[in-house]
Amino acid sequence: MDYLLLWPLLGGLLALLVVVLLTLDLLKKSRGNATMVEISNAVQVGAKAFLKREYTYIAGFVVVIAVALAVLGEMNPDVPTMNRWTGVSFAIGAVCSAIAGYIGMSIATRANSRTAEAARQGGVKGALGVAISGGAVMGLSVVGISLLGLCLVYQLFEGEPAIVNGYAMGASLVALFARSGGGIYTKGADMGADLVGKVEAGIPEDDPIAVTLNFTAPEMMQGMVMLPMLIAAAGVVASIIGIFFIRLFAKNDPQKALMNGTYVAALLTIIATWFIVDAAGSEFTADDGDTVYSKIGIFWSTVVGVLAGAAVGFISEYYTSSKYRPTRVISENSQSGPALTVVEGLSVGMKSCGIPTVVLAVAILIAYHFAGFYGIALAAFGMLATTGIIVSVDSYGPIADNAGGIAEMAHLDRSVREITDNLDSVGNTTAAIGKGFAIGSAAFAALGLLVAYTASAGISAADVSLTEPAVLAGLLLGGMFPYFFSSMLFRAVSISAFAMIGEVRRQLREIPGIMEGKAKPDYAQCVDIATRGAINGMLLPGGIAILLPVLVGFLLGKEMLTGVLIGSLVSGLMIGIQMANSGGAMDNAKKYIEEGNFGGKGSDAHKAAVVGDTVGDPLKDTVGPSINILIKLMCVISLVIAPLLT
Amino acid sequence: MDYLLLWPLLGGLLALLVVVLLTLDLLKKSRGNATMVEISNAVQVGAKAFLKREYTYIAGFVVVIAVALAVLGEMNPDVPTMNRWTGVSFAIGAVCSAIAGYIGMSIATRANSRTAEAARQGGVKGALGVAISGGAVMGLSVVGISLLGLCLVYQLFEGEPAIVNGYAMGASLVALFARSGGGIYTKGADMGADLVGKVEAGIPEDDPIAVTLNFTAPEMMQGMVMLPMLIAAAGVVASIIGIFFIRLFAKNDPQKALMNGTYVAALLTIIATWFIVDAAGSEFTADDGDTVYSKIGIFWSTVVGVLAGAAVGFISEYYTSSKYRPTRVISENSQSGPALTVVEGLSVGMKSCGIPTVVLAVAILIAYHFAGFYGIALAAFGMLATTGIIVSVDSYGPIADNAGGIAEMAHLDRSVREITDNLDSVGNTTAAIGKGFAIGSAAFAALGLLVAYTASAGISAADVSLTEPAVLAGLLLGGMFPYFFSSMLFRAVSISAFAMIGEVRRQLREIPGIMEGKAKPDYAQCVDIATRGAINGMLLPGGIAILLPVLVGFLLGKEMLTGVLIGSLVSGLMIGIQMANSGGAMDNAKKYIEEGNFGGKGSDAHKAAVVGDTVGDPLKDTVGPSINILIKLMCVISLVIAPLLT
Repeated sequence: MDYLLLWPLLGGLLALLVVVLLTLDLLKKSRGNATMVEISNAVQVGAKAFLKREYTYIAGFVVVIAVALAVLGEMNPDVPTMNRWTGVSFAIGAVCSAIAGYIGMSIATRANSRTAEAARQGGVKGALGVAISGGAVMGLSVVGISLLGLCLVYQLFEGEPAIVNGYAMGASLVALFARSGGGIYTKGADMGADLVGKVEAGIPEDDPIAVTLNFTAPEMMQGMVMLPMLIAAAGVVASIIGIFFIRLFAKNDPQKALMNGTYVAALLTIIATWFIVDAAGSEFTADDGDTVYSKIGIFWSTVVGVLAGAAVGFISEYYTSSKYRPTRVISENSQSGPALTVVEGLSVGMKSCGIPTVVLAVAILIAYHFAGFYGIALAAFGMLATTGIIVSVDSYGPIADNAGGIAEMAHLDRSVREITDNLDSVGNTTAAIGKGFAIGSAAFAALGLLVAYTASAGISAADVSLTEPAVLAGLLLGGMFPYFFSSMLFRAVSISAFAMIGEVRRQLREIPGIMEGKAKPDYAQCVDIATRGAINGMLLPGGIAILLPVLVGFLLGKEMLTGVLIGSLVSGLMIGIQMANSGGAMDNAKKYIEEGNFGGKGSDAHKAAVVGDTVGDPLKDTVGPSINILIKLMCVISLVIAPLLT
Repeated sequence: MDYLLLWPLLGGLLALLVVVLLTLDLLKKSRGNATMVEISNAVQVGAKAFLKREYTYIAGFVVVIAVALAVLGEMNPDVPTMNRWTGVSFAIGAVCSAIAGYIGMSIATRANSRTAEAARQGGVKGALGVAISGGAVMGLSVVGISLLGLCLVYQLFEGEPAIVNGYAMGASLVALFARSGGGIYTKGADMGADLVGKVEAGIPEDDPIAVTLNFTAPEMMQGMVMLPMLIAAAGVVASIIGIFFIRLFAKNDPQKALMNGTYVAALLTIIATWFIVDAAGSEFTADDGDTVYSKIGIFWSTVVGVLAGAAVGFISEYYTSSKYRPTRVISENSQSGPALTVVEGLSVGMKSCGIPTVVLAVAILIAYHFAGFYGIALAAFGMLATTGIIVSVDSYGPIADNAGGIAEMAHLDRSVREITDNLDSVGNTTAAIGKGFAIGSAAFAALGLLVAYTASAGISAADVSLTEPAVLAGLLLGGMFPYFFSSMLFRAVSISAFAMIGEVRRQLREIPGIMEGKAKPDYAQCVDIATRGAINGMLLPGGIAILLPVLVGFLLGKEMLTGVLIGSLVSGLMIGIQMANSGGAMDNAKKYIEEGNFGGKGSDAHKAAVVGDTVGDPLKDTVGPSINILIKLMCVISLVIAPLLT
């Protein structure tokens, strides 16, 4: 065993240890009064029922694909890098992702009522602590399980890149299904009625691809196999420190604490990177045996990634926080009715693509300048090293939001709802930052995978020139796919919401006393509708996402596939940014009105803003995050099948 | 003088002759009663005031750029293909486009009240004839003036490609400003109140680029300079026949007549193309002197363009006509409130990107297969040959719509409004077809220009490979720009609408009797607000669109510029299709409810659908069409500066 593997192993174990401690601490808190417990239970039961059914379907996909990969590997004995074990590592990746999703879901549905109760008892401070703990459990589970799974696969298959890539593919595939299904489930229910709770809270965009990219990199760099894995381990420790920093300082100014915690984690990661790179050597020779990069170059490539990720995240804050002009203009426009709210909301999202794209383009050029394509992979890696804290901060918001829902349904004192609303509003902005970070890092990770794909498929530069018609056709097809994929998810949300609204109207009509709180709504029926909508809605888009690169690669050629991947990356990046920020801005524009501006709650402006928020919700919580995973998944599938393409 | 030049010259003159005849016929019709005349006058005065102010600003841009081009040409005497005359041909192109826009605006604002009056007197048949004549005047003016201007420039500068490209650049630039400004003017007013009339009716997306592409092509093909120009001349004649076909058969089934007229024109163009190609020779040698294409190949490349354009157009019909499921689902969803209307409307637009993109990708591969990149230029040319009838059919809708507005404001009998509504509904679908065609042909024209750009700039295949970081960065930047551009136009519409709503509310408050029809609204003030909004709104996005390729080309290199152009093409194509179809579908979904479905006019579903329509309007009439011009303009600017890039 490579003794360096001890570090990521220790990092993963440490993350899970903190997860256990935080969970034990969290479960000790009171769940509140009987009504709160009951509602929380209903949410938990619904979420579990949904996840069980979802995982059953996903398991079918996983088994079929694992077998297909194994058979493909066996059928091509002349391709040494792909064999039956690719299927096994794929399955391991899938299981790891499923476990992370399950933990996330469990903790989120347990943290909600406890956050509400803490708000009731202890005010902002207590509630914040509980919500942050819930988020941290999720964030650290994701990175901990990813790292451990990767260590396992690495050890089992002796670091054979093509086999380890199967792990990333499995993890990413489950994440796509879980995230899009969870998004449809929650938003379908949300748009119908606030009865079913926030399940997407429980499904992080988990990302073992983060930790797998390093097995891509070695193809271009000699003797650097472990570098990114060590940085990942350092990132875990940095994230844990950042989380405790937040818990320590959150009572004063939650928003500031969340930001500063993220800063601290990023800074610590940068410092640790320097020591790791310094220890690894003073210069690094690329795969061609000629090109030599200095350790300074290696270091800066990583740092550029960290900085670009942070920049993209914080630009998202500008476009989605009601502290700034763009969101306030949406609130202002709401005075003239819902159409202007939506037009302005869409416009803000589109405009917000501008600077982040420039930042990412510049980061590509800088990273390449310092260390070639290996530099781009390193930059992706720098962005992803702080995944632990990013997911923690991102997951905190939905827990606070869900706590507010419980407070409302359990008829708690107004002050409780105000506290959770305040926490939720902070959460909305941090979520937008996290989403900006996620889409930026997804683009870089996809680029890294893509370069590995072209290398593995033996594609020469001239073959994938923009002057090749096959490449141009591929770019158009790839550019189209995220739109098509998004439309399917939208459609699923809208079908589910339409059914849910019908059901709610039926219950209000047929079960007397619901409105007065004397009779209980039939939660089970609602859960069932949301679950069916989500399962039906996730299968087709997910299935097409898997098939598209395979069909294009085998039938239309590896050059056209390169075009498809980059076209998807370009389109997906824009749609991802636009949807995250349109949704976030419209949500906060509504909240800004609720704070008493432009007529406040109940005014016509508020009604218009609610329409905007409802349109924005599936944009930011269903479609946007799924697109991030989509572009990575398509690249990693291509990378896995690359050795088989002729 | 090349005697072959006589044919396009005759084609252009014939088009203008028909324009004069149709106009004389149209002006003889009655303008209706005093109120109708008054309203129509108000619309005309407003439109003229707007156009005058808009053209003043555009003239400033044109002068500056013409001088810059001339100076650049003089400063680089070693670049023989660019000199002071590039500036002159640019100015000629700009003037041609401005004249076409002026004619379009004049006829549209004169046809509106006449259409309403014809509906009052003669029912469907008469109204249809007037509206179609108005549309035809516009369509034939665009192609006639384009062809004549091109003949002039060609004769003056002896067909020197780089100089003739200046003509396309001038025309395209004015079209972008006129179209985006006109779109903001109309939609800003529309979203505020239906007071100011439909000015965008008067500004066709005129497209001399259609006729200029042939000067691009010869760079790749020996002895074929005149081929596309001859096809253009044939297309004009085919369009005229198609228009008379429509006038002849329209009384029975307008929708069918409009479709069949377009079919007839396309078919005649295909037949004429065969004879032209057959007369030109039996095989064609490419610029490299080795590759030989058969006349069958040349023919099929052109036909593929015609067929692909028609296919994209008719797919748009499926997604936007209330005869089919997608639009009906939007109507159905409206029962659950405006949020679901908008979500479903956006979703339909996104889904509608699917098949058209596949069609275009396949067309690229087929055209290339038959005749290399020259084939792709020919396919673009085939699509654009029927511009005359496409613009005619496209322009008919807004005239009918505006006639309906006049009928409403002049308190004509309900039956009149029903006739114009019916015509408008047909117009909506034909407009969507025209828009599909326009975006498809824009993509192909841009591709043709792009290939010419890479040739002219001396870019090798390996320089613009997808494995080059500068190209990747360019693709991201270019992919972002249409989003940024769209958001600026949205913002302009929304600012203008917000101001207009404020003004309307003020007038209702301060001028007693408006609601009862006893006092007149202050039209002039409304026109002024809409005009200012449009001018302010069009300058920045248009200016950036001009500067972006220039700055990237000179500062960041011609390779990155290639990436930027293709990135814009990919993103712009998707946004263009999505917006045209989202907007068209939401408009027709509203009309479908107004026909009595899902509760009919005045129901909650109708109110929701109105919100959807209002969101969709700027999508389909302001942003979408501007994007088509944008992607062509950026390519043609790059082509013009190509010889100067190092």
